[in-house]
Amino acid sequence: MEPKIIKGGGVTSALGFRAAGIACGIKPAREKDLALIVSDVPGEVAATFTTNLVKAAPVKVSMQHARNGKIRGVVVNAGCANACTGVGGIADAKSMLDHVAKEFNSKPREWLVCSTGRIGTRLPMPQVRKGIEKAATKLSLENGTEAAKAIMTSDTRRKEFAMRIKVNGRKVTIGGMAKGAGMIHPNMATMLCFITTDACIDKPTLQSCVDEAVEHSFNRISVDGDTSTNDTVIVLANGLSDTNLLKSYHPQFALFKKTLTHVMRKLARMIVEDGEGITRVVDVVVKGAASVQDAKLAARAIAKSELVKTSWTGGDPNWGRIMTALGYCGARVREEMVEIYYDGVLAVVNGQPSKTPMAKLKKIAAKPIFTLTIHLHVGSGEYSILTTDLTEEYVRINKGE
Amino acid sequence: MEPKIIKGGGVTSALGFRAAGIACGIKPAREKDLALIVSDVPGEVAATFTTNLVKAAPVKVSMQHARNGKIRGVVVNAGCANACTGVGGIADAKSMLDHVAKEFNSKPREWLVCSTGRIGTRLPMPQVRKGIEKAATKLSLENGTEAAKAIMTSDTRRKEFAMRIKVNGRKVTIGGMAKGAGMIHPNMATMLCFITTDACIDKPTLQSCVDEAVEHSFNRISVDGDTSTNDTVIVLANGLSDTNLLKSYHPQFALFKKTLTHVMRKLARMIVEDGEGITRVVDVVVKGAASVQDAKLAARAIAKSELVKTSWTGGDPNWGRIMTALGYCGARVREEMVEIYYDGVLAVVNGQPSKTPMAKLKKIAAKPIFTLTIHLHVGSGEYSILTTDLTEEYVRINKGE
Repeated sequence: MEPKIIKGGGVTSALGFRAAGIACGIKPAREKDLALIVSDVPGEVAATFTTNLVKAAPVKVSMQHARNGKIRGVVVNAGCANACTGVGGIADAKSMLDHVAKEFNSKPREWLVCSTGRIGTRLPMPQVRKGIEKAATKLSLENGTEAAKAIMTSDTRRKEFAMRIKVNGRKVTIGGMAKGAGMIHPNMATMLCFITTDACIDKPTLQSCVDEAVEHSFNRISVDGDTSTNDTVIVLANGLSDTNLLKSYHPQFALFKKTLTHVMRKLARMIVEDGEGITRVVDVVVKGAASVQDAKLAARAIAKSELVKTSWTGGDPNWGRIMTALGYCGARVREEMVEIYYDGVLAVVNGQPSKTPMAKLKKIAAKPIFTLTIHLHVGSGEYSILTTDLTEEYVRINKGE
Repeated sequence: MEPKIIKGGGVTSALGFRAAGIACGIKPAREKDLALIVSDVPGEVAATFTTNLVKAAPVKVSMQHARNGKIRGVVVNAGCANACTGVGGIADAKSMLDHVAKEFNSKPREWLVCSTGRIGTRLPMPQVRKGIEKAATKLSLENGTEAAKAIMTSDTRRKEFAMRIKVNGRKVTIGGMAKGAGMIHPNMATMLCFITTDACIDKPTLQSCVDEAVEHSFNRISVDGDTSTNDTVIVLANGLSDTNLLKSYHPQFALFKKTLTHVMRKLARMIVEDGEGITRVVDVVVKGAASVQDAKLAARAIAKSELVKTSWTGGDPNWGRIMTALGYCGARVREEMVEIYYDGVLAVVNGQPSKTPMAKLKKIAAKPIFTLTIHLHVGSGEYSILTTDLTEEYVRINKGE
């Protein structure tokens, strides 16, 4: 059976998960800024954290807690990253966990914590503590959507998605929520993603599924090329679907992994589509590279080139700038072998302009979503990355006035 | 004697050099688009070319000609890069040299050729050939300035500079012109630079001086992080100052090298100051890195971060984004050791906000020129790079509509 999309599904679609999203006073104007996700029973956890050497306090704390032992849930705040806050910031992150643990008569190390927002400011802890108490009273299935709202920063819309499969004749659900719109680049973006599932799966197997799914989703998106200090993907599996354990030899294991990857890819795409100020979403596909690594270098250079991205803003299929990026990306490139396609229409052949009329290519580059395919014809390495254009609005949003 | 700046000096300041700049019809509206620089006698040449694997036709041809033998001069066109033009483009570049060589009763291999402009279109050769003939009749000392105008593309002003030193009691002059405003990044930028000198120096010595000077000038500037297909620095030395040969043991050798570096640094700074749409010029200085390589990684990551650059646009000393860039740049960074200064004023100490009032830092970040100093405190590696902010105007210029 193919996975089914759960309409309106999200972080509370799987059995035994409740959530809440409330305003505690970190953000101005009573905007929601604190979310809580709780499993009725302790579950397995697998997580991926930012590769940035400058890690926020909640990342440092959650990395420890995610290492072993079961997890009850996650507390998340928006409006303050709790990054570059020294030992005080670590104490704040731990205090959040102490507080949430007390509410649920559990141990602090059964909880994870995430923060997102401006770097270098401390959390207003009295408000945060009161917020946690309040959130604990608001937990429900319906409030999954409120939680998805509470983790937003520069996001213009909430990001939720869920799917259901059948395992041993029982329903298994994978659902989640994410946030992110800027500081988005592989390994990883300022993005937070929380996925819950009622699957029966052990920790190492879950972690291997998460690693693979992240590699094919959140590690393949780029808005502005900046990797944040707070990026986190957390997957909680509470086992309430009560199926056989999903080990690699289980007949439905591949289906589970594929569905988890699909949920992450969907949430990753939502992040790109909500990218700050963007007007185009571009699937950059590199084929025929000397190696996968080379294909990655080429795809990333294009996704990071200010000149390529601004040309898309103007609906200009400026392949000269793409050739330029290919030339400096570090991959093996033979100019005279390069082919470039916009939505499958040949723009460059043998490193030179094709006979396709410019007007036809311009029409494609002006679309809100298109695919740029580059064939290097020097090997069989492939890689793709989902990126955006670079607009005046992006600059306006980020210039901080 | 310290080097003296020659007021209004440029590519014809050194003895025996003449130049011309004319309109031949590559650019619309009769804008100047063809320049010629000629030495009265054949001279030594040293040059540096783009590291981009996709090299324009004139780069491929000039690389061969610069390798050995003496050089009479350079022909340069703007408005068309003659890049990604295949064998036809190579033929065009060679035809330009055939034509200029005939005008001066010399051999094509005594000439170099450069192009700058849009990639992927062919040169209008009949016009270019006529233009070369016309330029040959316009050569003069005064027309050095016209040559500097004729090589401009998105530049808003011409870039010329010259200095004079004394060697063996005789005047030695080093002067030049440059162009560039976008696609500017180390190794190297879409920039062309032509320097002429009447110094007596042999080819290998001149090349070593040029390599060092380029490393400290054009390789340390970044506007938008894109390395072009056409970048070229050419230095011609015709020996007409008639001094002793400037070998490394010559007492004035260090002075010559210093002055050449100074001329290149000045021209490089002019390029950054004329960067497309910029409102800030920022000297990014990294100190205390584990190695020079690490300092370079850190400086370049900051100079390339869209988020750091847009924050400067708004006059926002957003050091959180700088910490983020340091964390992902690949250099050894210990968060708790990092110090950040704006114009010498402490913004971050031990990886956390200093006590300096935000208003004071904002005042500095709103200046048109300031220095950002980062001390990593893990070693003694140092590196600096000159960069800019990223503005809505940059996007407007490059979105190509």
